[in-house]
Amino acid sequence: MEGVLTPEIWIAVAEKTGIHELRRTTRDEPDYDKLMRYRLDILDRHGIKLSDIQNVIGTLRPLPGAKEFLDELRSMVQTIVLSDTFEQFAQPLLRQLGWPTLFCHRLVVENDRIVNYQLRMPDQKRKSVAALKSLNYYVISAGDSYNDTAMLAEADVGFLIHAPDNVKREFPQFKPVESHAELLNAIKATISTTP
Amino acid sequence: MEGVLTPEIWIAVAEKTGIHELRRTTRDEPDYDKLMRYRLDILDRHGIKLSDIQNVIGTLRPLPGAKEFLDELRSMVQTIVLSDTFEQFAQPLLRQLGWPTLFCHRLVVENDRIVNYQLRMPDQKRKSVAALKSLNYYVISAGDSYNDTAMLAEADVGFLIHAPDNVKREFPQFKPVESHAELLNAIKATISTTP
Repeated sequence: MEGVLTPEIWIAVAEKTGIHELRRTTRDEPDYDKLMRYRLDILDRHGIKLSDIQNVIGTLRPLPGAKEFLDELRSMVQTIVLSDTFEQFAQPLLRQLGWPTLFCHRLVVENDRIVNYQLRMPDQKRKSVAALKSLNYYVISAGDSYNDTAMLAEADVGFLIHAPDNVKREFPQFKPVESHAELLNAIKATISTTP
Repeated sequence: MEGVLTPEIWIAVAEKTGIHELRRTTRDEPDYDKLMRYRLDILDRHGIKLSDIQNVIGTLRPLPGAKEFLDELRSMVQTIVLSDTFEQFAQPLLRQLGWPTLFCHRLVVENDRIVNYQLRMPDQKRKSVAALKSLNYYVISAGDSYNDTAMLAEADVGFLIHAPDNVKREFPQFKPVESHAELLNAIKATISTTP
């Protein structure tokens, strides 16, 4: 979702709130749990509630062309967005995208205060693809970074969309595309040759 | 989907085309495969192509309030429509409903002629619920007839929506609701007491 359909949410929140400590990503802190505790601690110290963040996120717009891309995709095939974001953060953007189904994680919220986060399960993108295959779906998957490659490998067909050069080099088995339009064409070509 | 979000598609096609033989349902012919072969044979004899049926279905409207119901539901929880219809038939109605994700079956089409149908898998509604539970989702399910009860039993919580009296009597374990509004309230109440 982020980077393909929407901006990177934490980065946008850091910019809009002016809290630059929130720019820290898994590139700076590879331990995801540490990073999330650090982020939730910062929100708490600044007295930032879930509704404050949702208001900030509500000022964001999906990436150009993302809504049109999703609508055309949904007219052709059943579509589920797999992301490691949190439902409560994604919600203001999902509304603008016409409520595509999203499998991701949830924040634990008490009286508007984010007290914790809850990963639905480890490796949920890959496992979601496996579950859809077990329901006899032929799964075409697309993603833009390292944390998508297990999901792409699990799918019947995997595409990299405007991925960094090192990811494209390291995973030559996934066809790279550079735009929504190119991805749509690649998906159409795949469907037309699928029994 | 049919009877809850949209009209019954075959009945509507029978009425709009004036081909009354297409009114036959599983109540008249309990063998589903026989019924489908009978229907496809009638279409063939009348020279009716997929695009003809899609044009007919495109003149149908979702049931009153269905779009608003789905939009409010999708703003609260992740939503997937489970149906034993065919993707190609559902498509003109899904468009009007804002492209909810639908798990159902597919027709086999060659040059616009419906040559066969392909059930994705037997018992797919129940298995879809089981797959979502395996992804650590708490699943709330709603349906209106006998062929939904296995799915309702598999879900964490099951509701019957304007079901016939005999179904309500036979399955008292599923709370009956009579309208979209009542179902939304029941779902909200369930969510608010779910950890």
